[in-house]
Amino acid sequence: MRPSGSGRSTGAWDERTARAAWSRLAEPGDEAAHALLDQHGAVVATDLVLGGGDGADLGWEPRHAALLASGLERWRTRLPVLEPERDLEALAALGGRLLVPGDPEWPAGLHDLEAAAPSCLWVRGPADLASVCEGSLALVGSRASTGYGERVAAETAAAAAARGTTVVSGGAYGIDGAAHRATLGVHGTTVAVLAGGVDRAYPAGHTALLGAIAASGAVVSEAPPGCAPTRWRFLARNRLIAAVAAATVVVEAAWRSGALSTAAHAVALNRPLGAVPGPVTSSSSAGCHRLVREGRATLVSDPAEVFELLDAVGTLQPPTAARSAARTAAHDGLEPDVARVHDVLPLRGGADVERLVVEAGLPQRTVVAALGTLSLRGLAQRSGEGERWRRAPQRR
Amino acid sequence: MRPSGSGRSTGAWDERTARAAWSRLAEPGDEAAHALLDQHGAVVATDLVLGGGDGADLGWEPRHAALLASGLERWRTRLPVLEPERDLEALAALGGRLLVPGDPEWPAGLHDLEAAAPSCLWVRGPADLASVCEGSLALVGSRASTGYGERVAAETAAAAAARGTTVVSGGAYGIDGAAHRATLGVHGTTVAVLAGGVDRAYPAGHTALLGAIAASGAVVSEAPPGCAPTRWRFLARNRLIAAVAAATVVVEAAWRSGALSTAAHAVALNRPLGAVPGPVTSSSSAGCHRLVREGRATLVSDPAEVFELLDAVGTLQPPTAARSAARTAAHDGLEPDVARVHDVLPLRGGADVERLVVEAGLPQRTVVAALGTLSLRGLAQRSGEGERWRRAPQRR
Repeated sequence: MRPSGSGRSTGAWDERTARAAWSRLAEPGDEAAHALLDQHGAVVATDLVLGGGDGADLGWEPRHAALLASGLERWRTRLPVLEPERDLEALAALGGRLLVPGDPEWPAGLHDLEAAAPSCLWVRGPADLASVCEGSLALVGSRASTGYGERVAAETAAAAAARGTTVVSGGAYGIDGAAHRATLGVHGTTVAVLAGGVDRAYPAGHTALLGAIAASGAVVSEAPPGCAPTRWRFLARNRLIAAVAAATVVVEAAWRSGALSTAAHAVALNRPLGAVPGPVTSSSSAGCHRLVREGRATLVSDPAEVFELLDAVGTLQPPTAARSAARTAAHDGLEPDVARVHDVLPLRGGADVERLVVEAGLPQRTVVAALGTLSLRGLAQRSGEGERWRRAPQRR
Repeated sequence: MRPSGSGRSTGAWDERTARAAWSRLAEPGDEAAHALLDQHGAVVATDLVLGGGDGADLGWEPRHAALLASGLERWRTRLPVLEPERDLEALAALGGRLLVPGDPEWPAGLHDLEAAAPSCLWVRGPADLASVCEGSLALVGSRASTGYGERVAAETAAAAAARGTTVVSGGAYGIDGAAHRATLGVHGTTVAVLAGGVDRAYPAGHTALLGAIAASGAVVSEAPPGCAPTRWRFLARNRLIAAVAAATVVVEAAWRSGALSTAAHAVALNRPLGAVPGPVTSSSSAGCHRLVREGRATLVSDPAEVFELLDAVGTLQPPTAARSAARTAAHDGLEPDVARVHDVLPLRGGADVERLVVEAGLPQRTVVAALGTLSLRGLAQRSGEGERWRRAPQRR
């Protein structure tokens, strides 16, 4: 028996299913959603969204109540696609499982994310996630890697695996792939944390690799099955990599690279951060050199120096909240709401505002305002006739 | 009229000639010699060595008097080869000049060496040494450099020259040569600080290069003409490079490289120190990575970052004496006296003890004791018949 539509029946889901629902309703890092679940539980929270009320009976103080009201507006845009039981069935069909906070398998490191912690994790693979993430090493870097970077990533991953250390990465091309592959090659444990659903192989060229990871380690996401890996979700995903791993090493990163967002999260979470130097004549190492120069990362030049980072875990200052880092990394010059609308704009064809509302999880007036901003900045354009929108082609 | 032999006539030399004599009598960094010259002047000091007295009339306190006594024993071993006027004539024939402390052209940075300051400098070349060393950049690195390191050295040197910054280096193969050459190539000013006499091109393959440096910049040594560049003098020379330059950058250095001794002097002198990273797969960059990891050097990845070091000059803590660094760098596992005897042992043929006494500038009993130590360690062996000694061939 499944609730259907806004104002539909409530109380049909248990806490676990309700948390699965929330991973669809709210985007990663939605702090109002986190506060609602934290204080009232996912069942009450889902009932509120489904029931159509304003949450006044929850007794939030005025400032927070305003955040709740705008949250309800956002979350309800997703009601048309809310089918957590179907999502859980899809996961089960893949042999996966849902983890929620409090489960023994919930990685301890996620608690450091505080209000930016995920509502649940969708997991495929035989590894006990809590166990394998303890003392694990995140190896991250550019998709546009060089042979040098891939070699260093592979050697470091193989050395980590040889000492029983799990290698965590993002499943992407380049450094991520080299790290995963080398770990599998020596029968080590590796965890891929994805930005989209665990049922989708992204990138498609890594279908076999992600399959192999799911067969021996774990493929993890906070997004439900079927979810596209938007840019917002990539940046948000990076905080999970930094949080589940005990230490992070950036193997290769250009001056502006997604890997630097993972690095920023590691620093914000007070996790040890290492960076591998490379030729100064290679732009692929510029981000690593920058991290070292700015005193944010320790220069690491061989596996032994990497393992020193892991041994240093716990000797750093108490963690600060990672929220500000998450915000900074995701903005990238655009307001968060505007960035989220930009994220879901199709590159080809076009999408009407109604679809963009569901995809972005934002109220219609917010989406319309964002389209105006994006249009003025030359980032969005009308597609064909009527109110269909797409991204504007970018000069590079 | 020239004094001849121990007990020969005194008072024949002026202060400048007497300082020239001291660069022959004492090895670089001889602190007893520095104290003697500092307190009584080079003329009195030379008279004492030549006159055969014990220096009791100088009124040194007992502990220092003992250092003076052992110093006199060392310095007098060099009397047979003491001909400062001939050395000065040889220099003049090359168009060179002698600089002593107090000369307007004496580089200001040398004062920071305190008791390890040289007694004089033998200089060839048209550059005003004090002027060109002000704000200058030392670029140092391995003789066994890679194409990568040479390219970075050359690009950095050319960029420095383009902004009017003098490039200081050691005239050696590898990084030194690349730095000098690139500076000359853009008509910049470069200074080579040599371990041996400025009349000797060392290495011989750099005869033309050193000639070109002497034609436009300066070739400098604290050792008199004809002096061989012993290992001790190479290590001692490194303190001069670090001291005359405003900042030092290590371009490429293996885990144990002579360039790291220059780096240690720069740190001891509180000069800004930079290190260029490279591939972690190249042993030629291991020393640079080590300097950065140990927090002794700032990672520099392009000329702009190098120039930031120069701009930082004067903002560091007050200098500490470089003496301890000089000692540490020169020991290398052997007692200083033993190392000096090892230095002057010929690789082929053999030298009798009498010759080793003059070359090492140490009393006969010290040389004999050192030969015993070196022999026990497998570092020296008798050559042919009688008391002739040579280095033992080393397994590598």
